[in-house]
Amino acid sequence: MFNTLRNYQREWLSADLAAGLVVAILLVPQGIAYAFLAGLPPQAGLYAALLPLFIYAMLGTSPSLAVGPAAIVSLMTLESLQQLATPGSAEFSQLAAALAVLTGLFLLLFYLIGLGRWTTFISHSVISGFSSAAAIVIIINQSKSLTGMSVPRQESLADTLWYVLQHLEQALPAVMLLSAAAILLLKAWPSLCRMLITHRWKMMSELLGRSGPLVLIVLGITLVPALNLPAEIVGDIPSGLPQLALPHLNSEQWQSLLPSALLIALIGYLESLSVATAMARRAKTSGLNPNRELLALGIANLGAAVSQAYPVAGGFGRSMVNQAAGARSQLAGLFTLAGIILVLVVATSWFTVLPKALLGAIIVVAVIPLINFQDGLHAWRFQKSDGLVWLVTFMAVLASNAELGISLGILLSLVLYLRRSSEPHIAEIGRYKNSDHFRNVQRHQVSTSPQVLMIRVDENLYFANTHYLNEYIIHRLEQADGIRHVVLVGSAINHIDFNGYEGLLELHQQLQQLNILLHMAEFKGPVMDRLESTDWLERIKPGQVFFTASDALRELGHV
Amino acid sequence: MFNTLRNYQREWLSADLAAGLVVAILLVPQGIAYAFLAGLPPQAGLYAALLPLFIYAMLGTSPSLAVGPAAIVSLMTLESLQQLATPGSAEFSQLAAALAVLTGLFLLLFYLIGLGRWTTFISHSVISGFSSAAAIVIIINQSKSLTGMSVPRQESLADTLWYVLQHLEQALPAVMLLSAAAILLLKAWPSLCRMLITHRWKMMSELLGRSGPLVLIVLGITLVPALNLPAEIVGDIPSGLPQLALPHLNSEQWQSLLPSALLIALIGYLESLSVATAMARRAKTSGLNPNRELLALGIANLGAAVSQAYPVAGGFGRSMVNQAAGARSQLAGLFTLAGIILVLVVATSWFTVLPKALLGAIIVVAVIPLINFQDGLHAWRFQKSDGLVWLVTFMAVLASNAELGISLGILLSLVLYLRRSSEPHIAEIGRYKNSDHFRNVQRHQVSTSPQVLMIRVDENLYFANTHYLNEYIIHRLEQADGIRHVVLVGSAINHIDFNGYEGLLELHQQLQQLNILLHMAEFKGPVMDRLESTDWLERIKPGQVFFTASDALRELGHV
Repeated sequence: MFNTLRNYQREWLSADLAAGLVVAILLVPQGIAYAFLAGLPPQAGLYAALLPLFIYAMLGTSPSLAVGPAAIVSLMTLESLQQLATPGSAEFSQLAAALAVLTGLFLLLFYLIGLGRWTTFISHSVISGFSSAAAIVIIINQSKSLTGMSVPRQESLADTLWYVLQHLEQALPAVMLLSAAAILLLKAWPSLCRMLITHRWKMMSELLGRSGPLVLIVLGITLVPALNLPAEIVGDIPSGLPQLALPHLNSEQWQSLLPSALLIALIGYLESLSVATAMARRAKTSGLNPNRELLALGIANLGAAVSQAYPVAGGFGRSMVNQAAGARSQLAGLFTLAGIILVLVVATSWFTVLPKALLGAIIVVAVIPLINFQDGLHAWRFQKSDGLVWLVTFMAVLASNAELGISLGILLSLVLYLRRSSEPHIAEIGRYKNSDHFRNVQRHQVSTSPQVLMIRVDENLYFANTHYLNEYIIHRLEQADGIRHVVLVGSAINHIDFNGYEGLLELHQQLQQLNILLHMAEFKGPVMDRLESTDWLERIKPGQVFFTASDALRELGHV
Repeated sequence: MFNTLRNYQREWLSADLAAGLVVAILLVPQGIAYAFLAGLPPQAGLYAALLPLFIYAMLGTSPSLAVGPAAIVSLMTLESLQQLATPGSAEFSQLAAALAVLTGLFLLLFYLIGLGRWTTFISHSVISGFSSAAAIVIIINQSKSLTGMSVPRQESLADTLWYVLQHLEQALPAVMLLSAAAILLLKAWPSLCRMLITHRWKMMSELLGRSGPLVLIVLGITLVPALNLPAEIVGDIPSGLPQLALPHLNSEQWQSLLPSALLIALIGYLESLSVATAMARRAKTSGLNPNRELLALGIANLGAAVSQAYPVAGGFGRSMVNQAAGARSQLAGLFTLAGIILVLVVATSWFTVLPKALLGAIIVVAVIPLINFQDGLHAWRFQKSDGLVWLVTFMAVLASNAELGISLGILLSLVLYLRRSSEPHIAEIGRYKNSDHFRNVQRHQVSTSPQVLMIRVDENLYFANTHYLNEYIIHRLEQADGIRHVVLVGSAINHIDFNGYEGLLELHQQLQQLNILLHMAEFKGPVMDRLESTDWLERIKPGQVFFTASDALRELGHV
């Protein structure tokens, strides 16, 4: 931020101002809508856009990431708290603020351990399957607002959907019409503006094209009440800025929030980072620093916590608007902030009569782009296991909840990876033509020696696969007579852990009993360093360490 | 089993009979002791040795693994159920039987997905740290029996220990003396026998040496009651065999047992397998089949479930005794079974007056060998991260409970592995002397071309490291001018997942923008197969695929 201000160029100001205000216009109804989605009073969504926005503008490294209330994090907040308190109650708000405290602390912990440098530790298939399902859950959750039905809380999403479908006759046609019109307006507005306004006014057309929500809200506030629809309305929003306070909970309540906070921190971070990365790539700017983002998001969440809000993240939709509206620096965020404060101080009463159906429409339009079956399909086509991860995550989020879904997805992708590397590709190799190249005996015409078995392991030696290698070699030795030397070729072994080392010790012992010598060739520097820190090189004597497989075969087998 | 019987040799019979009876002698007091440890009535431990033993003798593949009540699984049973019911109550017994049902089903699930073929998917450091801590927890849990104090249930292990130390004046000296004498007797008995009996009677001395628990129990039953100690006694054990029945629980209770059952299945299997493997290696026998073991243990647990027992596993101590006593086949298990049935039918009343202090002594002596700080130390010396996994698992089991400890240990070892492979070793390579060998430019004197950047990645391309490679290459290109070709050398890439492929697509796009061609060299068969299933090879044209790095440098850089 300060860096940016020092190099601030005057002509950026108007762009930042315009972008900041456009985002503010979108943020007010979205904030209210997301607060309802999270089970909180409407002001919580606006409060979530105050301190977090300011903090992110100060500390963040993306010029256009819009931090504040976000759809998926709102859903996760609802799902993690609805077992503990009644949505809408004061206790629920306390829990939500506490969740933001813990989310912030987890993000700071990630920052301290440098998680940002690990880049993507969660498979893209998990994130994509998760977001797609979460968007569907969010849309189904809006069925109450969108149809005007009263939908009692159900056990599961399927039950909710089933209830809605069974009681469709209770839906109010007028409300449904209103919702449909609102969604249509939001979807069609940008192209409408582009069509109606001439090319010479391109900037104007762009700005107007993004003000669909504003038009919708203005219409909703001015015209809809005159229609006297039986639609639920937003109701009173307290005027003014939030009191700063820390949530009060007992230690058991804090504890019960820990797992949810961990997952919200993880998802909030990954969502924010992927949005920021996508925008940086589009704008061809650099300077995004994942670890600094953790710091900024962590403190932003603490800011949300003390201002009666709930966990925040960088939202997909608003960030896109921010960038498209031409934000050049984090200053845009400060203009947005000013807009929100203005609304809170003078204009909360305007929103009292706004029908919730319009907020539902805004949410639906915001989350639809998150539904992305293509990702799952592409992953499946590339490799069944990648597609499976997408599908399991997607189904689990729909069938139970976001937390279980994402945990299961992460677990499955790890297990599948482990499974793949627990049965590594192992090749018996020999000299290719008269060269120094060594190749798989099963794929190429190579020369070998009957006394020497040369084995290349195409995987790191670690806890998931130590026994496999030994069993492979012992099995191979049982089939052949006269082998006096086993040469382990380490050209594809990138690291070794203690289990791998223990496995080597075991292999050495087993070979000793069979009167066979174990040698090594082409082991890489880091692996050799590790082995040299033990007495391994002493132990295997008279087994030798060769620089290349070629040297080994020449000396041991005279080939 | 049937296979064994077909080849049964007559001279094995006496060995099997002796071994079977020695194990029975050990099993009766151990079974009672472990049942108390698990919070169950004494007979549950004996029942756990009936059907499971029979089933394992039929289906198992290890001749000497003693399946039945086991120390660590007993502790895990206590810890997972004590939140749900009062130890010792009928409801607790129902829950324990249900836990055995689910443990059995999980084991059968593992059998179906062929988990046994994955060999070690949990790091040895996790298992070792876990067993060491669990043994300490078990010993501290015995403080009540060993000291004669009444120790109220405490929140945590530290509280229990603290309570015991603070109230040591309430300990009954007579009981403590009895415990100490018992432990001493059990520890010293084998060497005593070896000293007193001449070498000519070696077999006799061995057998007698293993009968320490029998001597202790006989003394405990006959002499100790005469001393009129204020020690707690075992109390009534119902005579006869258990009624077969399935536990009755509601669906919510079943659900709440799922996570515990999963971990007990995992730990029970790994413990049994590692004991069986160690014994097979010592006896130099083969035939152990990990996947068959899953089947045998799964059905054994179902057997335990219907006979009012609780989860079972292959125990360390008794299996060692079984092998040392000379068991040649699974028939030994059937003799043990006969012994237990005999006790249940005619002799349960003998144990009524047995002081619990002696059972505590038997447990302590049985679990002490599990405490193995050396493992942690060796792992730490080899590589800090391996030692850290040991330490964290160990501390977490002590500080909270077995389940959390083992989950944390598994998670940490996975995360550390991911972390290591998320920042893979990447080397810029060049031609070594005038050979066909390519080596790291930073470590060796190699020849390169200013137009060609050759990059070797020493890791699989998967979700944990895709961005890292791209950032490395882009960063490298920013430092140098005039590079026209980037050659990715794939000799150490063993597999690629969808994220890795997406990363390559991204790299290709970024290089296109910079007007640089991307080529590939030395990619392995399985990775090429994967890439050929997409349109990748079309996309990178005119970038080329070379067989060797040498070909690439010769053609692109004329070097």
